[in-house]
Amino acid sequence: MGFSVPVSAVKDSEVDVLVVGAGPAGLMAAQGLHRAGVKVRVVDKRPQAVKAGHGDGIQPRTVEVLQSYGLGERLLREGVQVHMAAFYNPSAKGVGIERSAKSRDVTAPTARYPFEMTLHQGALEELFTDAMRDMGLAVDRPTLPVAIELSQDEAELKDPQSYPIKVTLQNLDAAEGVSDTEVVRAKYLIGCDGAHSFVRRNFGIEMEGEQTEYVWGVVDIIPDTDFPDIRNRCAIHSHNGSCMNIPREGDVIRLYIQLTDADVRNEVTGRVDMTKCSAEKLIEVAQKSFYPYKIASKGPVEWWTIYIIGQRVAAKYSVHDRVFIAGDACHTHSPKAGQGMNASMNDTHNLLWKMTHVLRGWADPSLLKTYEFERRKYAQDLIDFDKRFASLFSGKPQTEDNEDGVSHEEFLAAWQQFGNFTTGVGVHYAPSAIVNPIHQSLASGLPIGQRLIPQMLVRLADARPYEIQDIAPADSRFKVIIFAGDIQDKAQYNKVHALAETMTQPGSFLRKYTPKGSDYTAVFDVITIAASKKDELDYTDVPELLRPHWSKVYVDDVDFTGKMGGNAYATYGVDRSGVVVVVRPDQYVGMVAPFDKIADIDQYFSTFMSQGF
Amino acid sequence: MGFSVPVSAVKDSEVDVLVVGAGPAGLMAAQGLHRAGVKVRVVDKRPQAVKAGHGDGIQPRTVEVLQSYGLGERLLREGVQVHMAAFYNPSAKGVGIERSAKSRDVTAPTARYPFEMTLHQGALEELFTDAMRDMGLAVDRPTLPVAIELSQDEAELKDPQSYPIKVTLQNLDAAEGVSDTEVVRAKYLIGCDGAHSFVRRNFGIEMEGEQTEYVWGVVDIIPDTDFPDIRNRCAIHSHNGSCMNIPREGDVIRLYIQLTDADVRNEVTGRVDMTKCSAEKLIEVAQKSFYPYKIASKGPVEWWTIYIIGQRVAAKYSVHDRVFIAGDACHTHSPKAGQGMNASMNDTHNLLWKMTHVLRGWADPSLLKTYEFERRKYAQDLIDFDKRFASLFSGKPQTEDNEDGVSHEEFLAAWQQFGNFTTGVGVHYAPSAIVNPIHQSLASGLPIGQRLIPQMLVRLADARPYEIQDIAPADSRFKVIIFAGDIQDKAQYNKVHALAETMTQPGSFLRKYTPKGSDYTAVFDVITIAASKKDELDYTDVPELLRPHWSKVYVDDVDFTGKMGGNAYATYGVDRSGVVVVVRPDQYVGMVAPFDKIADIDQYFSTFMSQGF
Repeated sequence: MGFSVPVSAVKDSEVDVLVVGAGPAGLMAAQGLHRAGVKVRVVDKRPQAVKAGHGDGIQPRTVEVLQSYGLGERLLREGVQVHMAAFYNPSAKGVGIERSAKSRDVTAPTARYPFEMTLHQGALEELFTDAMRDMGLAVDRPTLPVAIELSQDEAELKDPQSYPIKVTLQNLDAAEGVSDTEVVRAKYLIGCDGAHSFVRRNFGIEMEGEQTEYVWGVVDIIPDTDFPDIRNRCAIHSHNGSCMNIPREGDVIRLYIQLTDADVRNEVTGRVDMTKCSAEKLIEVAQKSFYPYKIASKGPVEWWTIYIIGQRVAAKYSVHDRVFIAGDACHTHSPKAGQGMNASMNDTHNLLWKMTHVLRGWADPSLLKTYEFERRKYAQDLIDFDKRFASLFSGKPQTEDNEDGVSHEEFLAAWQQFGNFTTGVGVHYAPSAIVNPIHQSLASGLPIGQRLIPQMLVRLADARPYEIQDIAPADSRFKVIIFAGDIQDKAQYNKVHALAETMTQPGSFLRKYTPKGSDYTAVFDVITIAASKKDELDYTDVPELLRPHWSKVYVDDVDFTGKMGGNAYATYGVDRSGVVVVVRPDQYVGMVAPFDKIADIDQYFSTFMSQGF
Repeated sequence: MGFSVPVSAVKDSEVDVLVVGAGPAGLMAAQGLHRAGVKVRVVDKRPQAVKAGHGDGIQPRTVEVLQSYGLGERLLREGVQVHMAAFYNPSAKGVGIERSAKSRDVTAPTARYPFEMTLHQGALEELFTDAMRDMGLAVDRPTLPVAIELSQDEAELKDPQSYPIKVTLQNLDAAEGVSDTEVVRAKYLIGCDGAHSFVRRNFGIEMEGEQTEYVWGVVDIIPDTDFPDIRNRCAIHSHNGSCMNIPREGDVIRLYIQLTDADVRNEVTGRVDMTKCSAEKLIEVAQKSFYPYKIASKGPVEWWTIYIIGQRVAAKYSVHDRVFIAGDACHTHSPKAGQGMNASMNDTHNLLWKMTHVLRGWADPSLLKTYEFERRKYAQDLIDFDKRFASLFSGKPQTEDNEDGVSHEEFLAAWQQFGNFTTGVGVHYAPSAIVNPIHQSLASGLPIGQRLIPQMLVRLADARPYEIQDIAPADSRFKVIIFAGDIQDKAQYNKVHALAETMTQPGSFLRKYTPKGSDYTAVFDVITIAASKKDELDYTDVPELLRPHWSKVYVDDVDFTGKMGGNAYATYGVDRSGVVVVVRPDQYVGMVAPFDKIADIDQYFSTFMSQGF
């Protein structure tokens, strides 16, 4: 705990990283970098955090990520859980809608939190800012950059300890007579400043892709209704347009409502005209879709807006690997699949540990190239998904009169097929310096390049059940997980002991990439998972080299309730003869190697880690 | 949220309830009463909360209770979980100890949290005081009562709105020149002021029972050890005395160490002499018990003390049902079974809702008599258990030379037999005005007089899995749970509908014991649990009278993971033809009735509830 200095009073200051924009992407970056001890500053032009409306869907993988920073518990307490989806289509009777099906909302068997969540953006931002406050970091607002210059000096650009970025900030709140601009020099800059990003435009980065013709309205209300699925996620296709219902906090729901040109476009210019629309108008259109069910607002409408779906991705994500953009600044798409905040937070979750490693001198600056490589590909996949989803959803339903329309079966199949992607748990990063699938066959159920699949284990010293993801928090360290097999077997014990000896030789990554004078635990978190029973093996039976602390030894066994654990080796497809798994600081699996090919792990780290520092 | 007034500045004030002592019992009372809107003040003579040592065991039922006030999550995050117990006895080799068995620490199949927890008393107190601060209530300290007078006027004593108690408080911190005493008039007083209770002595209440001869030492250390069960609860019987190990926060452990007269008693007087003992001495004695394992302290000892086990219960728990005592003020026993804080918090958990009901005018003051009836009986059972446990534990182990000693089998059997009691989940209150077992056979698996057995349900409107205990929080309302059967069956639906009609007649308890002008939901929380499938029934299918809100309808079905729910009717032994269960505000089952005997529930409430107010 500490106190935040009123930094706006400090002129011509230096920071390691300047984060522009305190939305979900910027706050994820700021809290993660600050937590890792990086000197970070975050500015936002808004005088206050968002209060209502805006993005609200939080996908299962995002809950896992927030949990990896210790923020999952509060999210789970405050957010709404969406478990059920209901699908409505034109009634066979010819008038109004009827339910075609109810199903599980989330299709992602490996999700640790197998539901979608909703929480308004303001509450999500507060979750970050409260945690930041407890760590002594505040958002500097209302403050925005008015000029950004990046040095063109090659030597300067190559040195991660240089300050090649000069930013002129303006504080919009400065008292009269007080200078309201200041200059900040930064080693790195992350532009998380939204769809109209100043950072992106400042460096002339193009958005690639186009607008669609689909216009939608969105409104948050407390409903007065007899609709039985009002607390479920609903996709409603009617003859009067499409509608989506999303349950929100308390009794609030959000409706996404398909609009026609007559609803929103100016008759003369053909352009979308906000003044043609109103909250009442949106609810009136929704009521037509919901018929014969009643839908109205109890009391005043909380928030509403209309939008045209744009599907675009930035041409590049960085300038000389010193200035980066993230979140809405590099991708825009339909909000209905609830991906916006998730894509944004996961962008900076991917970037921040890499930046931390480079700033600490642990890794070569080339590591930063994997940010664009991994996250731009993801954004393109997201847009591809979104195009298909949006067209299915905005299209006319199939009926007797309209045989070319979207059938319920087609829609449902797409909904479920994309589940693994939209939940975020199936996101797969392609091979690179930090994703090496060479020994994938030794852990066939643990895809290299995907996030560590949740699995319950039992901590050996105290028989407490633990989720493996909680053993691999986002603490900026690589996790080296040793699946040691059954070490009560003497031959296997000897193999494990020999492995420990190898891993502590001077040539081993554990020694080579650890700062001089530091213990390897500063950079690497070594964890042993034995294929033994909790009441047969003692933690003291594990070679000392592989248990820097009593809490680092686990067994793949059921816990005392008999309900959790015992499936890790089987789920991961790991043989009891043993394997070593390298998990990145963002919980993605980077590498797998058998005991006799530990040199391949040395090789893996040698491509991006720095030695002898 | 509000702000706490510096009450010590207000002289000759009035409060509904004055709580003396801010240990676990007092804080439980204060937070619960304040939460319920009762005007409460809590004073403590200690200038600061406890920092280290003292009570630390938190039993499964206590976690449930804290969770019922919304405090369980933080407790689970901060506390240590103890899952495994290990038993050591003299080695067959004749020297030192060896492990006889490892087993599950907690034997209580219905526990929601099937483990013991440890958390030092200071952290537990902070959990309460932080929650109180957020609600605008602070502990007034260092402040203690120097005189307490209770009116002898019968009319005054009978009127729950009178202030028959006059307390003179002294503030030990008052600035010079400022009056340091004040007079407070209170409707009720709860003495939670410990084993040497001023409140108890002021009213001449005797402690019944005696001291034992057993002297024990207790020490908190960070161990330097090769003992494989150092993170498990261990009962060690050696030729050199007995010892118990309890894992604590971080790397800390607590050792309870049996001492001999030579260790602690003055040779001349025979009295226990603290100066004969030291932390080093305790560890030296422990080392002898642990042999051949090594046990030493890394760094300085955190806390230590010695004690003689006393097993006593106060002769009565109240004076004219206006002044009450709770916690250590009314029972003392051995700390080794980890019951102390638990018994204390559960005392006031039992009392506070009753006091709330009386103060609100909802219940007759006679309701308060059930406090002593229920909690004194519990304390006596606890002492009986403790005597047996302490003598088993302090006795010599059985060996070839000592055949009359305590055998491992005997000890283990006692350990497990008492599990249901020591975990708190099996505590059973005898029949009284608020425990009526007349229709027990209709819910054979849901013992009337015991706490509501945990069970997962699925909330119908949104398919979210819910623990039934979370549906029955300690919000001072009685829960009326309607096991409605399968209401998709038309005949059953009609029965349920008829029940709803009956329950809303003027003569029904829902109407009779609700304050004029209030909705019944002010006093009663009506919840419906249908024996239907989550994707077949709609919440709108339940009669409106039985669903005051969409969140009040549940089904006894598995959730979407297939891992939770679907066993409530079977576990509780409830027939699908329907039954109504009354759960007290402290989560104890008070009454069960079939649909056609709702009049028995009217009768139940008529014995202690007030009408026409």
